[in-house]
Amino acid sequence: MVTNAHTRIKYQIKPFTLLYTHTSPDPIPDFLSSHAASIRAVVSVGRLPITAEFISNLPSLEIVVCASVGVDHVDFDECRRRGVVVTNAGDAYGEDVADLAVVLLISVLRRISALDRYIRSGQWTRLWDYPFGFKLNKKKVGIVELGSIGSLVAKRLDPFGCIISYDSRSPKPDVPYFYHPDILSLAADNDVLILSCSLTDETHNIVNREVMETLGKNGVIINIGRGELIDEKEMVNCLVEGVIWGVGLDVFDNEPEVPEELFGLENVVLSPHSAGMTAESLNNVTEVTLSNLKAFFLDQPLIFPIELD
Amino acid sequence: MVTNAHTRIKYQIKPFTLLYTHTSPDPIPDFLSSHAASIRAVVSVGRLPITAEFISNLPSLEIVVCASVGVDHVDFDECRRRGVVVTNAGDAYGEDVADLAVVLLISVLRRISALDRYIRSGQWTRLWDYPFGFKLNKKKVGIVELGSIGSLVAKRLDPFGCIISYDSRSPKPDVPYFYHPDILSLAADNDVLILSCSLTDETHNIVNREVMETLGKNGVIINIGRGELIDEKEMVNCLVEGVIWGVGLDVFDNEPEVPEELFGLENVVLSPHSAGMTAESLNNVTEVTLSNLKAFFLDQPLIFPIELD
Repeated sequence: MVTNAHTRIKYQIKPFTLLYTHTSPDPIPDFLSSHAASIRAVVSVGRLPITAEFISNLPSLEIVVCASVGVDHVDFDECRRRGVVVTNAGDAYGEDVADLAVVLLISVLRRISALDRYIRSGQWTRLWDYPFGFKLNKKKVGIVELGSIGSLVAKRLDPFGCIISYDSRSPKPDVPYFYHPDILSLAADNDVLILSCSLTDETHNIVNREVMETLGKNGVIINIGRGELIDEKEMVNCLVEGVIWGVGLDVFDNEPEVPEELFGLENVVLSPHSAGMTAESLNNVTEVTLSNLKAFFLDQPLIFPIELD
Repeated sequence: MVTNAHTRIKYQIKPFTLLYTHTSPDPIPDFLSSHAASIRAVVSVGRLPITAEFISNLPSLEIVVCASVGVDHVDFDECRRRGVVVTNAGDAYGEDVADLAVVLLISVLRRISALDRYIRSGQWTRLWDYPFGFKLNKKKVGIVELGSIGSLVAKRLDPFGCIISYDSRSPKPDVPYFYHPDILSLAADNDVLILSCSLTDETHNIVNREVMETLGKNGVIINIGRGELIDEKEMVNCLVEGVIWGVGLDVFDNEPEVPEELFGLENVVLSPHSAGMTAESLNNVTEVTLSNLKAFFLDQPLIFPIELD
């Protein structure tokens, strides 16, 4: 079994032996090839792409255990072809990600980070001498993909008095929110879009200039999914031109690179892909990851297997 | 009728004539004395103290209309003695203040403003290379005064999975939260204290060093009430010494002065008394203020009269 950087799995568990890429002086490809025959499992922490080439270099590989919810960095076609199974962290981060969506939204509307910078820079010298923010109550919030995380976001926004809607191919039964058949219709009818969908060919750049123009000049976008859900270059243009009002971003196209044009904008709140990064959730994820590994090596049912079809 | 700076009341309403202190070249005392005989109402916007001396200089004064929720800047004894009535903005800001309490809490726990500064300063060069925050879910939150705003805060925090309690002299009927008889007991049993009480002789410096030591080194305090609820000097000491973990502050002892020691602390989020300051609520407050004024001059029931006893 092999694991890359930042894992918290610091101890050896009986049913398997751990090999660490990040404590080896060798580059990852050399390290992998020197252990290739013995590696049956890979623990993927972070977003190092688990490509077809990576997988083909490990002839004994049977499982990729992801310590993440998103698994778009794993080549599913190759896993399917080779019969490699993939697991993820299930709902380990769900609450934290939903919390982040809410705090980014209120921070953008109420200018929380901007006002904090304003005070720290010594500019607060007169009461109420700063631009006012906007009220959350009665804002119309459209959730792009009302999956497990989107639903947690909706549940949290409900008592703030937000009016919530979502888009999907067909209305979901038993969901009390307004339905829209597509993102353009959702953008046309809402003040805020929250992106909580996974990244697929269909959702790549799902927020393009047309969607932002439709959302309009008071519109706010919160992205807690993946950077590639938004056409990042057009988003920067739209912010600078006032096509939309503000954004709260936890994810970016090419992390950790962030478009520098955003650094000077006040209606923007930036977070370094920290949606699930709380001390408590990382402990939780460590447990889930270890449990998936143990289950695999002990031939027991996996906890969060991914459907590759 | 006289009104001080920043009011949005820019037009004249039939039943009264408006006099503006902030457009007059005269200092406020001179301005008031030159119109003293005719002034029957004062609109108080901001926190200019409406002292006994201020009131005694206006022999015809019958009402002080406050465009704020807090009215601790008005000398109630003198109003009572003179038979001057006082009104406030009722619940005009309630939702915004509650929203701010929640966003300050999550911002402190999840380091939102600190991470935003971190990215803007160009320090984000490696994924997950920053201190992690803490999870809101299952945090024990003690609300100091479960009044109208405290209740709105509790309602909002409920779906985040917080465990909520409050202190008061006796348990409130029909309240589903845990009860504590005093703030020390509340601090001992909680991770977070949210101060949403009004400032009185009893609540002045209600959060002293003993309370902070009792709350403990992982403790977070959110103050959306008045600066004087906390012993500010001891709070700074406690933050620097690690007696408590973090604070989110919308109010300060001597606004707009903020203790400079706070500017360098990462577990602190600062807001410039902006709890109710949204464009939407200010419009709402303007309406409430005008309605109270009109009601007074038309001899109709006031909308939000304050009990002075």
